[in-house]
Amino acid sequence: METKNQEEEEQLVTPWEVSAEKGGKIDYDKLIDKFGCQRLDQSLVDRVARLTGRPPHVFLRRGVFFAHRDFSDILDAYERGQKFYLYTGRGPSSEALHLGHLVPFMFTKYLQDAFKVPLVIQLTDDEKCMWKNLTVEESQRLARENAKDIIACGFDISRTFIFSDFDYVGGSFYKNMVKIAKCVTYNKVVGIFGFSGEDHIGKVSFPPVQAAPSFPSSFPHIFSSKDDLRCLIPCAIDQDPYFRMTRDVAPRIGYHKPALIESSFFPALQGETGKMSSSDPNSAIYVTDSGKDIKNKINKYAFSGGQDSVENHRKYGANLEVDIPIKYLGFFLEDDAELEHIRKEYGTGRMLTGEVKKRLIEVLTELVERHRRARAAVTEEMVDAFMAVRPLPNMFN
Amino acid sequence: METKNQEEEEQLVTPWEVSAEKGGKIDYDKLIDKFGCQRLDQSLVDRVARLTGRPPHVFLRRGVFFAHRDFSDILDAYERGQKFYLYTGRGPSSEALHLGHLVPFMFTKYLQDAFKVPLVIQLTDDEKCMWKNLTVEESQRLARENAKDIIACGFDISRTFIFSDFDYVGGSFYKNMVKIAKCVTYNKVVGIFGFSGEDHIGKVSFPPVQAAPSFPSSFPHIFSSKDDLRCLIPCAIDQDPYFRMTRDVAPRIGYHKPALIESSFFPALQGETGKMSSSDPNSAIYVTDSGKDIKNKINKYAFSGGQDSVENHRKYGANLEVDIPIKYLGFFLEDDAELEHIRKEYGTGRMLTGEVKKRLIEVLTELVERHRRARAAVTEEMVDAFMAVRPLPNMFN
Repeated sequence: METKNQEEEEQLVTPWEVSAEKGGKIDYDKLIDKFGCQRLDQSLVDRVARLTGRPPHVFLRRGVFFAHRDFSDILDAYERGQKFYLYTGRGPSSEALHLGHLVPFMFTKYLQDAFKVPLVIQLTDDEKCMWKNLTVEESQRLARENAKDIIACGFDISRTFIFSDFDYVGGSFYKNMVKIAKCVTYNKVVGIFGFSGEDHIGKVSFPPVQAAPSFPSSFPHIFSSKDDLRCLIPCAIDQDPYFRMTRDVAPRIGYHKPALIESSFFPALQGETGKMSSSDPNSAIYVTDSGKDIKNKINKYAFSGGQDSVENHRKYGANLEVDIPIKYLGFFLEDDAELEHIRKEYGTGRMLTGEVKKRLIEVLTELVERHRRARAAVTEEMVDAFMAVRPLPNMFN
Repeated sequence: METKNQEEEEQLVTPWEVSAEKGGKIDYDKLIDKFGCQRLDQSLVDRVARLTGRPPHVFLRRGVFFAHRDFSDILDAYERGQKFYLYTGRGPSSEALHLGHLVPFMFTKYLQDAFKVPLVIQLTDDEKCMWKNLTVEESQRLARENAKDIIACGFDISRTFIFSDFDYVGGSFYKNMVKIAKCVTYNKVVGIFGFSGEDHIGKVSFPPVQAAPSFPSSFPHIFSSKDDLRCLIPCAIDQDPYFRMTRDVAPRIGYHKPALIESSFFPALQGETGKMSSSDPNSAIYVTDSGKDIKNKINKYAFSGGQDSVENHRKYGANLEVDIPIKYLGFFLEDDAELEHIRKEYGTGRMLTGEVKKRLIEVLTELVERHRRARAAVTEEMVDAFMAVRPLPNMFN
């Protein structure tokens, strides 16, 4: 048996908690080994580019999405003319999204556009009601506010269904929840999620709710008589436990295993030891932050790999491995040549931290401003339209 | 710690298993003590008669419904002009109901008529799908078949909503499930229901499904803006664990505790050691049994308290305490004077087992024939009408 102390020092990645080994950063290779997923290699990235006839997304070509399960099967089938559908989601625990929250949605939008496939987005207001002890009403309000931010990412309404669990659970979806629950023992969820006997049974009941959208029969208004359609789930790798469970159950209830394409975590301003946290506002850039907020947060909190004096910096250059401005530019600066230029100049000390931060502030301010304008244009009617239980006509065109 | 052997010899009453202490019969006094409910005494029976202006039901005046929780509070409120609603249910695990299944429905119909109150009837097809390992489709088919038998008991459609969980779980009902689940730990359900770590999580998830109908807000189409309405649950006492849990949770989520009125078990033909079981067809009289079946089962299997020879019987009389024909007549022979006469004649040996069985066969044949005729008159349209999500106009008139 390990002592408490040893446990605390180990890397921990669950859907509710992400922390690196003490003093280090998340070891993604270790995570791939532990979870048993596959590395998303260059040949797969090239294949996506070839199949979609467009350059791979920044998040693909820079390894933000770095792991997968059966993504190659999805591509094999696609090549044979068989489409699939996308499923992603969000736990609406806070009013405003931060940049880390946008990552899966930006990538999912790219996948939807590139492959021309339908998409379901689950807002787990029930989960947040139970885990964060929010009221039902507050969870539902947050779900709707978050839906506006999601819609602002530019999803195609003719191919996208957004639903909140409190609204949508029932009927075929509930039947799949029951089928899934029948195949998972309590010991199994304890092994996967680490629940204890003092946890409430809502937690134990929830995994089938997140699993159900992996199966097309949970959405008869969209996929009726398409029970054979495959599902691809873009998500951060901390959600992998849910879908390990789902993939285990799928063949036992006559369904395809969902495929996954999984991202690393968007690091906190303070450094790459975990993922951005909603609980510390200074650890993250929010889509509601003003230009002034962004400037202030980047300048004040973004962990720098630069040296402690200009003299030393010119001499040794920045440590790009730990530098947050460079990491953030890797996510959001689309121009590969410019990024490479900055990395080189900064790494060799010719460029100073202040200059890199200045460029990052420009990039993020533009991104956040664009998001803010898009969100302001999202009306209540649009939210209703995206969340309406309806067929998605021409969803594969 | 008790040994396995000692455990097996003890009385066991759970929603899934009922067995008496080895060699004995169910000790209901012990059950009342263990569960912590109250005995339904004569003064309460008299009060029901007074308040409803009609003689108390056979099941009340003969102690079939023998225990309660807060039933007197329901009557207090009723006396002040505050109505309540009834909630009962059935797990649709078999095609045909046996007499024991009819008991709560016959009694609930009496309560509905006597108090003129609305009624919700839950068909737990999800539970049976999970516990009996039936397919979703088979559970739903059984639920609908059972609904016909329930409707045949004569419920007033203008005051009755019958629902299947697979059809109805969702919306306000699901929100209540989540609110309830948040208040119950895994250790708590283990204590109440005896689940083990190897049980599937569907079992752990189910108690909130059976709890939710105890709260009027689970039925907004019927009770909108009547969140304060009290609920009275007529059921067999093996369902008490669900509602102990529900009553524990209720005040924590701002609802009234449901009141209960609880029956003993309808004994098996072989004797009063448990309740009738669907798994042994010769232990029960089914509503689908022919007159010939009934005659054969009673004559062949009904445990007799009569003596082994006519001579001894005339001398010692029958042991009414263990005699199944007398028990059954106690449930279904409405004429108090006739029942008393039979008890006396049989107990003193002037009447023989064959004669008592003959009378019981008449009573049951008539009951089953009446039920069969009523069920044959139940159309698919009537089932749809009872199960339609709709307001119940004039439900308190």
